[in-house]
Amino acid sequence: MEINFEKGLVPAIVQDATSGEVLMLAFMNEEAWRETIATGHATFFSRTRNKLWRKGESSGHRLRVREAKTDCDRDAIVLKVDLLGPGVCHEGYKTCFFRTLENQAWVITEQKVFNPEEVYT
Amino acid sequence: MEINFEKGLVPAIVQDATSGEVLMLAFMNEEAWRETIATGHATFFSRTRNKLWRKGESSGHRLRVREAKTDCDRDAIVLKVDLLGPGVCHEGYKTCFFRTLENQAWVITEQKVFNPEEVYT
Repeated sequence: MEINFEKGLVPAIVQDATSGEVLMLAFMNEEAWRETIATGHATFFSRTRNKLWRKGESSGHRLRVREAKTDCDRDAIVLKVDLLGPGVCHEGYKTCFFRTLENQAWVITEQKVFNPEEVYT
Repeated sequence: MEINFEKGLVPAIVQDATSGEVLMLAFMNEEAWRETIATGHATFFSRTRNKLWRKGESSGHRLRVREAKTDCDRDAIVLKVDLLGPGVCHEGYKTCFFRTLENQAWVITEQKVFNPEEVYT
């Protein structure tokens, strides 16, 4: 289950196992990857906080890993997950990718599914 | 259509617009992003060759962009594409993510769809 961390942090794509929707992209170091596999819940490395990030630890919106894939170079990961909550985005959307390019401008094309002020207290 | 390149190269997730399958992950600098939008074909920045990478330029297996999305922080991109060819992976698979974790080992779970030696000459 080796992943190549020689170039640094490895991008992990989180995909809804049911719909196939891409929910978020985050980064992993080796510790985050090992913990993800050991626990079955997505754990990342936060570049801004510079520490392990157990996704959903405070909100309860964990990501249960149903399947993990890696690419030809073993330096990128896809996690197919079940959402244990309404969404992954700290702005209240199901997916972080809630903006779509339309006529050269970013347009919000998703509906909010929870109130971040209630969830992240 | 601003993307935040302040942290450096931005990861771009390529997803099959029809099946939702994640095909590859590559990186973009601002020039690659602008060229992608201007031409409608995915262009990346190759970290190994340190230059612009017009995906499919030699193989003809271009990626036609049907939709572009960005995330809450505008530092990651999803491209939903039509494949103008059998696959994206230089090893001959449709997707670069052809390995799945099974019992703590990476197993090849895809079939080759083209012969790389014939395509990359």
